Amino acid sequence: MKLNKELNILIVGLGLLGGSYATVLKQKGFKVSAVTKNQEDIDFALNEGIIDEGTIELDSKIIGKADLVIFALYPHIFVEWIEKNQSLLKSGAIITDVTGVKGSIVYKIQDMLRPDVEFIAAHPMAGREMSGVRHCGGVDFVEANYIVVPTDKNTHKAIELCCELGETLGFKRVAELSVESHDKMIAFLSQLTHCIAVSLMCCNNISGMEYYTGDSFRDLTRIAQINDEMWSELFLNNKDYLLNEMECFRKSFDELYDKIKAEDREGMREMMRLSTYRRKRFDKK
Amino acid sequence: MKLNKELNILIVGLGLLGGSYATVLKQKGFKVSAVTKNQEDIDFALNEGIIDEGTIELDSKIIGKADLVIFALYPHIFVEWIEKNQSLLKSGAIITDVTGVKGSIVYKIQDMLRPDVEFIAAHPMAGREMSGVRHCGGVDFVEANYIVVPTDKNTHKAIELCCELGETLGFKRVAELSVESHDKMIAFLSQLTHCIAVSLMCCNNISGMEYYTGDSFRDLTRIAQINDEMWSELFLNNKDYLLNEMECFRKSFDELYDKIKAEDREGMREMMRLSTYRRKRFDKK
Repeated sequence: MKLNKELNILIVGLGLLGGSYATVLKQKGFKVSAVTKNQEDIDFALNEGIIDEGTIELDSKIIGKADLVIFALYPHIFVEWIEKNQSLLKSGAIITDVTGVKGSIVYKIQDMLRPDVEFIAAHPMAGREMSGVRHCGGVDFVEANYIVVPTDKNTHKAIELCCELGETLGFKRVAELSVESHDKMIAFLSQLTHCIAVSLMCCNNISGMEYYTGDSFRDLTRIAQINDEMWSELFLNNKDYLLNEMECFRKSFDELYDKIKAEDREGMREMMRLSTYRRKRFDKK
Repeated sequence: MKLNKELNILIVGLGLLGGSYATVLKQKGFKVSAVTKNQEDIDFALNEGIIDEGTIELDSKIIGKADLVIFALYPHIFVEWIEKNQSLLKSGAIITDVTGVKGSIVYKIQDMLRPDVEFIAAHPMAGREMSGVRHCGGVDFVEANYIVVPTDKNTHKAIELCCELGETLGFKRVAELSVESHDKMIAFLSQLTHCIAVSLMCCNNISGMEYYTGDSFRDLTRIAQINDEMWSELFLNNKDYLLNEMECFRKSFDELYDKIKAEDREGMREMMRLSTYRRKRFDKK
């Protein structure tokens, strides 16, 4: 299967990311339908012209004709959906997802899935601190990374289709990682940063502090506005890797604390020079 | 003294902030001169038209005619400058600064200063991860806060002049804080965030991680590109407050760690809801 405009694309879960996918795919001339739980989200998406059709029912016609199905659901709901409804999928369909953790779901879904349907996992790293289809205009794929996460069970053609999808959506970079590398990377780059932001926002509450803040505090806590239902699930789904990264961070933080306490200025400066050197790699080109 | 275009304004230290002050003040029609240590910085500033005259000498004519002197130096260099050169200042001059810590310098300078010169401390919260006069175009005062930090020794007229300076420079908000409130606030909002960014950047070095990062890691580590000479001095100058804020953060971070480890999902969500609620106060209006 090649990504082409004859394909019927179905989005299951019309939230922030599902809605963003729909928007771009429709703009590019693809046929897009949606299944989601709230009628208002369908109505909104139809009004905005970001889907061709949509339903809150398990509509066997809409689901059964889809060649490419994109699941944009919470991890456990995605798993439940496949358990209960996979019989509705078209034979030969390829399904993909947007889930932020992989180890806890990919093998489970690939193991239970019908042999005539293939699941190729993907993670678009373009979430935002808002949620819901109404905010999907705020998502920007152009500066974001799209990670395809294949396993031994995946075919080349599905991996290619998934990469093409990432490119078509306009992501700056489409890359491949194994399930384990993905989850370790995400624990460090995404989940740990959310843990830090939440902890920082919880640890102090100086009256009027919002009037004295510079950009640094604002930048560090932007993601402290967090969807607690989704992120608590993502954290627990990646618990071992995340706890490990939290321990690494704490060790580094404690080292800096000890150096400041000991007035070890050269030691402090050494850490700062290392951080400066490493951070340069992350400058957007 | 009122801020008016007849005043001779002198900037001592033509770096990122000194250069930014000069730029705005010249644009608004003030007479601006500069004393700094490198001739290239003077040449650059003259070429760019952001100062009227400048010197790397301790020029008694330039220094002696200044009505308002803005010190944009590292804390210990500021203190040394006053110790050695305060005899050059004009009688009746008002001096101010841009230093990021106050307790360690303000009383010291006010105690040693000639009685006919007044020092009113200020902190423009508009630093950047770059340094040097060549980058001063990247500093934006429009979205930043300017904190005036008076003590019992200050006169109303100097406090007012300093506030006027902040307004003239175009800061979004001009506020007043005591020395102690300022240093505690800064320890939390600015220094702790820099400690976190440096620790985060030092704690891990996954190969290729820059290719998989989303905005959150980038935002949290922007300030990990840090001027180690300046910040190590600022940290040590505010050591007690900073260590205290680091302990608070670690307590909060450990609490989240324990909840994740115990799979206490409701406890995690409670922290996330608190952080979300508190963070809303910081949204730029």
